[in-house]
Amino acid sequence: MKKMEGGVCAPAGFRANGVHCGIRKNKTKRDLSLIVSDVPCAAACVYTQNLVKGAPILVTKEHVANGTARAVVCNSGNANTCNADGVEIAEKMCALVEKYAGVPAGDVVVASTGVIGQPLPIEPIEEGMPALVGGLLADADGSLYAAQGIMTTDTVDKQIAYSFALGGKECHIGAIGKGVGMINPNMATMLIFVTTDAAISPAMLQKALSADVKDSFNMISVDGDTSTNDMVCVLANGLAGNELVDGPGKDYNDFRKALHKVTTALCRRIARDGEGATKLLECRVTGAKSKAAARTVAKSVIKSSLFKAAMFGSDANWGRVLCAVGYAGAPVDITKVSVDFRSRAGEVAVCRDGSGIPFSEEEAKKVLSEDEIEVLIRLGDGSGRATAWGCDLTYDYVKINGDYRT
Amino acid sequence: MKKMEGGVCAPAGFRANGVHCGIRKNKTKRDLSLIVSDVPCAAACVYTQNLVKGAPILVTKEHVANGTARAVVCNSGNANTCNADGVEIAEKMCALVEKYAGVPAGDVVVASTGVIGQPLPIEPIEEGMPALVGGLLADADGSLYAAQGIMTTDTVDKQIAYSFALGGKECHIGAIGKGVGMINPNMATMLIFVTTDAAISPAMLQKALSADVKDSFNMISVDGDTSTNDMVCVLANGLAGNELVDGPGKDYNDFRKALHKVTTALCRRIARDGEGATKLLECRVTGAKSKAAARTVAKSVIKSSLFKAAMFGSDANWGRVLCAVGYAGAPVDITKVSVDFRSRAGEVAVCRDGSGIPFSEEEAKKVLSEDEIEVLIRLGDGSGRATAWGCDLTYDYVKINGDYRT
Repeated sequence: MKKMEGGVCAPAGFRANGVHCGIRKNKTKRDLSLIVSDVPCAAACVYTQNLVKGAPILVTKEHVANGTARAVVCNSGNANTCNADGVEIAEKMCALVEKYAGVPAGDVVVASTGVIGQPLPIEPIEEGMPALVGGLLADADGSLYAAQGIMTTDTVDKQIAYSFALGGKECHIGAIGKGVGMINPNMATMLIFVTTDAAISPAMLQKALSADVKDSFNMISVDGDTSTNDMVCVLANGLAGNELVDGPGKDYNDFRKALHKVTTALCRRIARDGEGATKLLECRVTGAKSKAAARTVAKSVIKSSLFKAAMFGSDANWGRVLCAVGYAGAPVDITKVSVDFRSRAGEVAVCRDGSGIPFSEEEAKKVLSEDEIEVLIRLGDGSGRATAWGCDLTYDYVKINGDYRT
Repeated sequence: MKKMEGGVCAPAGFRANGVHCGIRKNKTKRDLSLIVSDVPCAAACVYTQNLVKGAPILVTKEHVANGTARAVVCNSGNANTCNADGVEIAEKMCALVEKYAGVPAGDVVVASTGVIGQPLPIEPIEEGMPALVGGLLADADGSLYAAQGIMTTDTVDKQIAYSFALGGKECHIGAIGKGVGMINPNMATMLIFVTTDAAISPAMLQKALSADVKDSFNMISVDGDTSTNDMVCVLANGLAGNELVDGPGKDYNDFRKALHKVTTALCRRIARDGEGATKLLECRVTGAKSKAAARTVAKSVIKSSLFKAAMFGSDANWGRVLCAVGYAGAPVDITKVSVDFRSRAGEVAVCRDGSGIPFSEEEAKKVLSEDEIEVLIRLGDGSGRATAWGCDLTYDYVKINGDYRT
């Protein structure tokens, strides 16, 4: 697999764009994005499990029920959630894509991110659509503009693309993303749009995505709040010309690997750009009784406010790691647990067999002062393993969320 | 029921004290406390559910297995947890109480709170014990010193006492407490010691305590981290002379009410004094399908970092409340949910039937600028109700926890 430029436009036959249409007050910020495939695509989506679901999610579910789609339209600045006319507005957004881009409304994936409970006006979207469609680009700029158009509290745009071989053909997979899955119900809804020119059936594409998110996006946490509008969508248009992947086997596994490469790269970028974050935290759990137990433990540690605050302070407070392992709710023999901290600056062992061991505080401080920290937890009780991603808890997190609406 | 002074010394036959023995470096801070009853007591305890349990909890469990106890000894500054010699040290603490206060070691409840994973030296405790026992007082000062001796990041001591009638006799119930149940595995372990001169059997006392915590201490959250050393202990010495409560009925119910008055008063104080907190948050859920559903929803809202940060900023961001209701995991019909904010300054309705309603931002700001905020959630789907307590998420929380050990 080879990393490449181009984001969602790296695969053949995809064009993208993003414009400022007026939903956001700041005129320098793009707030409406569009991705269009030249031909119909297999489509797979996963959505938030929050009982409160954004109206766009209800509309998208209907549109991809047949396993196909051709375009993604998404606005930032307003979540179109908890509004009486939400579904109607989301459908109008799709109808506008049909009118100006010629993609049937029923083949459009629609998403929104921003404040909950404020009506989303259709007028700016209607006014912005001609320029959005007219400016669609098949190159890296198109992907960049689309990535910018879905940003909210994100400080950097998030794109990734890889080329990979599938049944002897060169395929491509790219993605744009924003926000952090569980960070913020208003602003930082996680949206991920993946494009690929690989040929894969809708059923296998959905299977691949549903399996993948368990070890990718579901393993990120910034603050434990599950958004109302989270969505991950993959469009596969088949233009690479590989033999259709329509069942399990080597080709399916190769596609899974490519997809996972893209999703985990985005997980790391999303966690690192968590609201107020100064550090990316990666928690690797090994030796668990089961895969599920490993996930539970990794997620518990990465979600702990105390652990996150300690990492902000570069404090090797391993007791907080052990504590989060203990209350995770997974079967763990605490007397077998080891903990190490690792970063570019080195590695420091802090706990063996559930008890503290002597270590150099100075050395630990050096390791934890880096901006990418790994906490390695060995449970010594099986072969289950999992990785979770998060970020430190900082003054800026409180600042950003203490007075976001005003 | 009548509120009174005296904390754990309000009930007849209890003496208490707290001294500085040298576990904590700051000589102005008491770090060792003792509560002693003149006669044997019925004893009931509940403990943390964290798999990592402090050594004192293991020892206390053995000591109260027979349903009786006579004294409580507790140090701050060190949790005596994850230490190879932890149980041995905890047992030595009880033996010292036997040696100097004449209470059999097997009748001593022992607790510790402070840093995890650092050996607890017995020497300062041994040196401090004679003064601790010699200074035992049966008055409000004794309770105050004991309350101070168990404080860690607490900014105020926490005591409460009430008189109440039981079977025609005047009884008393008092308590001291520290920390916040789920705030901090190292420092702010929640410890609650309740004394009463009511006569009640060990079995009924345990029943009353186990039932009570579901609606009191288990409904507090500051940051969702469950400590390794949490403990609530009730000692009942029977000196009030009421007829022994040894089964269900009016007397048992009256005792439950008195206990609940004390525990909920402490819940509010503990939540208000949460690390870095500027506001007490109280979430009242009504109209849930069941009691359990009400508890789940109330706890989910009070734990949400985003809601807590919004309250810090006096921001009526009700979408975050609805979001936390939606991901709580309880059966809720979102289209029936109402949300109001209330405080001394007034009440403001923000959400009806799951959608936003117009409200004055100015009025809302006024309501939310108070230091005690109620969020009222009506689910309109049954008669289950529950209250949860928490506090806002502030810069100081990050500061306190970002670099606690150094």
